[in-house]
Amino acid sequence: MIGDDFAELKLFITGPIMLRDEVRKAALLPEFGHRDSENIKRFGSIMSNLMTIAGNPEGYTPIIFNGSGTNVLEASVRSLVSDTDKVLNVSVGAFGDLYGNLSAANGKNLVSLKFPYGKAIDLKVLEEYLIKHKPQVVTFTHNETSTGVINDVVAVCKIIKAHGAYALVDGVSIFGGTDSTIGEARPLMYCTSTQKSLGLPAGFGIGYVNDETLEKAAGVQNRGYTTDILAQIEKARLCQTLTTPNGTLSNQMCVQLDYIVNTETVPVRFKRHEEMRKIAHDWVDGMNGYELFAQEGYRSPSVTAVKTAAYMTIDRLKEVKELMRGHGYLFDPGYGKINKELQDQGESPIFRIGHMGDIMPDMLKDYLKILGEVLSTFE
Amino acid sequence: MIGDDFAELKLFITGPIMLRDEVRKAALLPEFGHRDSENIKRFGSIMSNLMTIAGNPEGYTPIIFNGSGTNVLEASVRSLVSDTDKVLNVSVGAFGDLYGNLSAANGKNLVSLKFPYGKAIDLKVLEEYLIKHKPQVVTFTHNETSTGVINDVVAVCKIIKAHGAYALVDGVSIFGGTDSTIGEARPLMYCTSTQKSLGLPAGFGIGYVNDETLEKAAGVQNRGYTTDILAQIEKARLCQTLTTPNGTLSNQMCVQLDYIVNTETVPVRFKRHEEMRKIAHDWVDGMNGYELFAQEGYRSPSVTAVKTAAYMTIDRLKEVKELMRGHGYLFDPGYGKINKELQDQGESPIFRIGHMGDIMPDMLKDYLKILGEVLSTFE
Repeated sequence: MIGDDFAELKLFITGPIMLRDEVRKAALLPEFGHRDSENIKRFGSIMSNLMTIAGNPEGYTPIIFNGSGTNVLEASVRSLVSDTDKVLNVSVGAFGDLYGNLSAANGKNLVSLKFPYGKAIDLKVLEEYLIKHKPQVVTFTHNETSTGVINDVVAVCKIIKAHGAYALVDGVSIFGGTDSTIGEARPLMYCTSTQKSLGLPAGFGIGYVNDETLEKAAGVQNRGYTTDILAQIEKARLCQTLTTPNGTLSNQMCVQLDYIVNTETVPVRFKRHEEMRKIAHDWVDGMNGYELFAQEGYRSPSVTAVKTAAYMTIDRLKEVKELMRGHGYLFDPGYGKINKELQDQGESPIFRIGHMGDIMPDMLKDYLKILGEVLSTFE
Repeated sequence: MIGDDFAELKLFITGPIMLRDEVRKAALLPEFGHRDSENIKRFGSIMSNLMTIAGNPEGYTPIIFNGSGTNVLEASVRSLVSDTDKVLNVSVGAFGDLYGNLSAANGKNLVSLKFPYGKAIDLKVLEEYLIKHKPQVVTFTHNETSTGVINDVVAVCKIIKAHGAYALVDGVSIFGGTDSTIGEARPLMYCTSTQKSLGLPAGFGIGYVNDETLEKAAGVQNRGYTTDILAQIEKARLCQTLTTPNGTLSNQMCVQLDYIVNTETVPVRFKRHEEMRKIAHDWVDGMNGYELFAQEGYRSPSVTAVKTAAYMTIDRLKEVKELMRGHGYLFDPGYGKINKELQDQGESPIFRIGHMGDIMPDMLKDYLKILGEVLSTFE
């Protein structure tokens, strides 16, 4: 029968993520009409809990976009970068690059600033670029999924604002796992999605906007339809979505955000992610020839990138993946393009440990113990 | 507890739709990595079954877009209407209008042709417009959800082609409930989604494209990213999605399409939709003062629009909705904008009966019996 051969793997990749049993089971709750009074029972709670998880940033409202994280990122550049604007994309990896590609694909006037893989945004270099290029909008990534780097959103946004530009932040792989800092950083828009640290399936992008965001959008032509935050905000204010949402995901999201806010609590969730980062770091420290890839002080609490020992190769990491599958795990052998570049430079590749969402410290320890044993067979 | 007050209503609206228990339960199947070998176990079967349900149109490939039906419709105009093209939107109702709005919101050079509510596309009038405006692209709706009208896709596409234009078809509310006719009509793109006659939650748009489609897209600038069918087709050919799909919906879709193709079978499903149309028509015939709203010969097998008796009003239909809720049903009191227009003209409003997806003839009969009783109290 269909489904009988679907392997129940424990996902230690960087998204999609492992779901709690209760999240899967919430899919059994009733479907509902998205323009009916039943809608508010889900989305009233969802919108309120999204504000709590974001730290209740004053003046901001979340908008829920149908699609993945990429849909909300595309909406941010489509709605907030005008044809006469210059947009500076600041990247520290593959997903930082994607944000720039989204601007380019939408015909925006793009300037790029890229830091070496594993490094965070260097504020001095950023400032030089701001002075030199005078962009109206700057896009960057809170948490770089491909390299395990977390940027200081508050510091980056402050410099951007000091130079008269607007900041758009990609928080896809970290929101729900650490403080979004939206309230302090006050970006023009903060974008995230369901399928990472919130511990849900993919399906909704989430964007935090305020009055300044809407004012900026009003001056942008050709915002499209599903990407138009002015069309979206009208429905968001009614706790609805612009187009038909996935009812199953809505039910799962309602249950999961209630769990995050009222059962686990937000501070405990953030602390658990920090604890898992420490577990991952301690494990790497104990692995002969392996080291943390991300720059010290900028290491992500949701994903750890590991530079492998000199004898490791892309092909061997694929073998590791299949061996880990045999233990019931889905291992992440690293971001393909980056590993290819490293290999071409004669360097060993990196792999990633996703420890986000509802992975628990003990689950991570069990995983790392087995991963250590598997990796040792390649020495 | 969260979820305890979610009412289990039987949805007789026009989407989202009622889910079979087996579709809900398929949400309990394992999550998976969308770039891992587990992906093909779902999407290999999904892509193959999508072809079967479409009637295996020669040369076409389905693309799965994250988002709702609107996302794939927006992708079709964004990728296939160039800045120098004129696009003619042909509408027979609110969702026909939406397709035109999508072109306008994306800055396309739009000409509109609108038929009266309840009427299908008049081929002679369409031909006059084609001769007069010489559009490069024509958009229209296979099945108009707001008025219960089904257009003759093959005939409409033939005329469009005869005048040297390309046809884009919105098949959102009908695909899976009747023959798509893609193979015979051969539109440039046929768009649909999961949350209607396929009997699934919202979350994926589906677009059928062929080599001609890709060639046309190659000549269009500024296609965006998630809306770019040339980026999407690369992943579709690997049975993948461009961005992270909802794993829960993927599992549900895999199970449901297998059920449609291998258990119910496609001809039986199409016949059941025709049978339900007849049940709805017979019921309307028996209702004093009520009549079918759509033009004879163009009445949809997935949704029936009913013109109410002279004493009925928009407010009374809202009362009907609440009374039907008391019986465990979600009733559809009609499309707001259209009923407002009818009321302003001194006419009684229309309501809709959604009979798509996995609603069974006996379920529909039970619903209509109670609806008849409720409506009779307003005489």
